[in-house]
Amino acid sequence: MLYTENIVISQVLEFFGIFSGIEGEYGKMAPFKYGMNSQILDCTVRDGGLVNNWAFSVEFVQDLYEALNEAGVEYMEIGYKNSPRLLKSDGSEGPWRFLNDDFIRKVIPEKKRTKLSALVDIGRVDEADILPRSESPLDLIRVACYARDTEKAAELVRLFHDRGYETTINIMALSNVMDKELNESLAIIADSPVDYVYVVDSYGSLDPNDFRYLIEKFQRTLPNKKLGVHTHNNMQLAFANTLVAAQMGVELLDASVYGMGRAAGNTPTELLLAKLNKPQYEVRPVLGIIEKHMLKLREKDEWGYLIPDMITGMLDEHPRSAMGWRASEKRNCFVEFYDKLTTPEVYYK
Amino acid sequence: MLYTENIVISQVLEFFGIFSGIEGEYGKMAPFKYGMNSQILDCTVRDGGLVNNWAFSVEFVQDLYEALNEAGVEYMEIGYKNSPRLLKSDGSEGPWRFLNDDFIRKVIPEKKRTKLSALVDIGRVDEADILPRSESPLDLIRVACYARDTEKAAELVRLFHDRGYETTINIMALSNVMDKELNESLAIIADSPVDYVYVVDSYGSLDPNDFRYLIEKFQRTLPNKKLGVHTHNNMQLAFANTLVAAQMGVELLDASVYGMGRAAGNTPTELLLAKLNKPQYEVRPVLGIIEKHMLKLREKDEWGYLIPDMITGMLDEHPRSAMGWRASEKRNCFVEFYDKLTTPEVYYK
Repeated sequence: MLYTENIVISQVLEFFGIFSGIEGEYGKMAPFKYGMNSQILDCTVRDGGLVNNWAFSVEFVQDLYEALNEAGVEYMEIGYKNSPRLLKSDGSEGPWRFLNDDFIRKVIPEKKRTKLSALVDIGRVDEADILPRSESPLDLIRVACYARDTEKAAELVRLFHDRGYETTINIMALSNVMDKELNESLAIIADSPVDYVYVVDSYGSLDPNDFRYLIEKFQRTLPNKKLGVHTHNNMQLAFANTLVAAQMGVELLDASVYGMGRAAGNTPTELLLAKLNKPQYEVRPVLGIIEKHMLKLREKDEWGYLIPDMITGMLDEHPRSAMGWRASEKRNCFVEFYDKLTTPEVYYK
Repeated sequence: MLYTENIVISQVLEFFGIFSGIEGEYGKMAPFKYGMNSQILDCTVRDGGLVNNWAFSVEFVQDLYEALNEAGVEYMEIGYKNSPRLLKSDGSEGPWRFLNDDFIRKVIPEKKRTKLSALVDIGRVDEADILPRSESPLDLIRVACYARDTEKAAELVRLFHDRGYETTINIMALSNVMDKELNESLAIIADSPVDYVYVVDSYGSLDPNDFRYLIEKFQRTLPNKKLGVHTHNNMQLAFANTLVAAQMGVELLDASVYGMGRAAGNTPTELLLAKLNKPQYEVRPVLGIIEKHMLKLREKDEWGYLIPDMITGMLDEHPRSAMGWRASEKRNCFVEFYDKLTTPEVYYK
C-alpha cells in the first residue's frame, strides 16, 4: 500500500477509537483473538468482601486459591492491605479486610503458580505494615485512587516499587473525570514506576465503545505502561467490556467468580476462562467453586443484576444509593427509586 | 479524499467486518449513536412463555401492553400463532401458545402505537387460521425456521405477505450452520417478499465480533432487506450483541422485560430503553412492570445467568440439556454437567 493510504487507514481506525492497540495483530491476520497477551486477576475475596463484609472462611479462600491455580488464573487478590488504625474498624469485618502477612502465610502456606495481590486505598496504608516483597507472601500491590489523588497514589506506588512489589494504579470513576484532569493524572503516572495502569468503570456505566476510547487514550498516552481493566455489571456489559480490552491487548483483566462484587458485581471469572484464547485456562475448577461455595454465598448476600444498580449504572452514579435502597423496606420499589434519582429537587427528601 | 483512499478505507472496514452498515452515520460523524434507526420488538410473552408454559394472566399482558406503549416500544409479540391441532397440545399451556384473534381483541380491545406480532413455526400453521391483516389485530407475523427449511419459510412468508402482514424470517441456530448452507438460505430469502431477516443466536454462544461478521454478511447479501437480531444471554453478551446491531443500523431488536426468555433469557428491554439514542423511549413504565410482575414470575420460574446455560452457551449447544439438568435433582452439580457435555463417550449414559 502507498504511504498516504496507510495514513488514511490509521486515521480511520483512530477516528473509530479502535484497533490502535492491535495493529500488530491485524498484521498477523488475527484481530479477533481474545486475550493472548492478557492475564486474569481474580478479585473475588477483595471486591466480594464489599458484599459480605469479608466474611469468607479460611476454607473458602484456600479452595479458591487451589481452584484458581488449576484454572491457570495468574493473580488472586486476597483482600485489602489497609491499616485498621487508619480506617475506622468496628471489628466486625473478616480478616481479608486488613490483611496480615503472617495470617496470609498460614492460609496459603505453599504458593503455587497463582500470585497474590492486595489493594490499598490512599491515606489508609501504614508504611510499617509493608515488608519487603522477599519477606511477604504478596507479589502485587494495587493502589486505588480518585483522579484528584494521583500524586498520592504515585508516591505510594514508589514505596511499594522500592520494596520490590509489582504495582498498579487504579483510577476510579473514570466516567466522572474531565479530560483535562485525566490528562494531568496520566502525566503524573507516566513519570511513576508503576507497572500497570487501570481503566476502572466504578459505576458500571461504560459500554464497549467507551472502553475502546479510554484504552486507546491510555495506550497512546502511556506507551511504556501495561494496562488493566476493572468492570462492573450494572448494565450487563462487564464481560463485553473486558473482551474489548482483551482484544486490544490489555494485560490485566479483573474478574470475580460468579461475578461476586459490590452491587451489580464484576465480570465473571468463569466466562473469561471459557472465552479467552489462552491454552492454559481451564474453566472446570472454577465451576467447582461456584457449586461448592458461591450458591450458598449468594443466598446469604446479594449481588448481580438488580434493578436499582441498573438505574445507578444508566445514570452514571455511584451505586451507594442503590445499595442503600436494597437494604431498605422499599427494596423492590423500582419506580420510586428511579423517580428519586431523576428528580433532583426531591433527591434529599 | 482520493478515490483510491476511499477504496482502501472500505477494504479495511470490510476486513474488520464492521461499520459497513453505518457508513452513512460515519459521514455524519456519529458512529457511536445506538439505534437511531432501530425499533424494539418485545417478546416477553412469547419467549418468556417457553419458561412458564405461557401461564401469563390477561392482566399481565394488558399491563405489559400499556407499559410498552408508554415506553415507546414499537412491537409486542403476544405469543405463537401455531395451530393446536398441528402441535401436540396437552391443554395445560396458557392461551398465548395458540393465539386466537378474537381472544387477542378481548385482551387488547384498543390498539395504540405499539403493534402486535406473533411467531409461527414451520409445519405448525393452519392457513385457515390466518385472516387478512385488515380483519386481524396482528400486524407482523414472524416465521422461525432452521436453515434447511428456508424454502418452507419463504412459502409461509408469501402467504402472510399476500394477506397484508409485515413479515420476518428468523433462521435459528446460525452458529451451527455451514456457510454454504447459509448462502443458499440467503439466496432464497433474497427472492422472497419478506420484510425483515433475523440474525438469531439461539444458543447464546455468539460474541460481538460474531454479530458484526454475520450482520455485515446479511447486509451485503441482502441489500434490499431490513434486518433483525434475537439474542440469548448465556454468556452475558445479549445486550452487548444487540448494541452492535443497533450501531450497525439493524432495524428490529428483540428484547424481553427483565430478560425473561428460555434458559438464560434475552436482552432486557429495560436496558435497550435506557441506552438507545431514541428520544421516544422511556424506561420508567417498564421498571413498573418489573416491580409489579416480573419479580413474582421469577420466583416461580427461573431464567437468566445459570451455570448449566452458561456451559451450553460456551459449548455452542442447544440449552435443552441445561434445562433438563436444572429440572433434575442434580441441578447444582455444575462440574458433573460440564464433564457430561465435554466427554462425548459418556454423554448418553
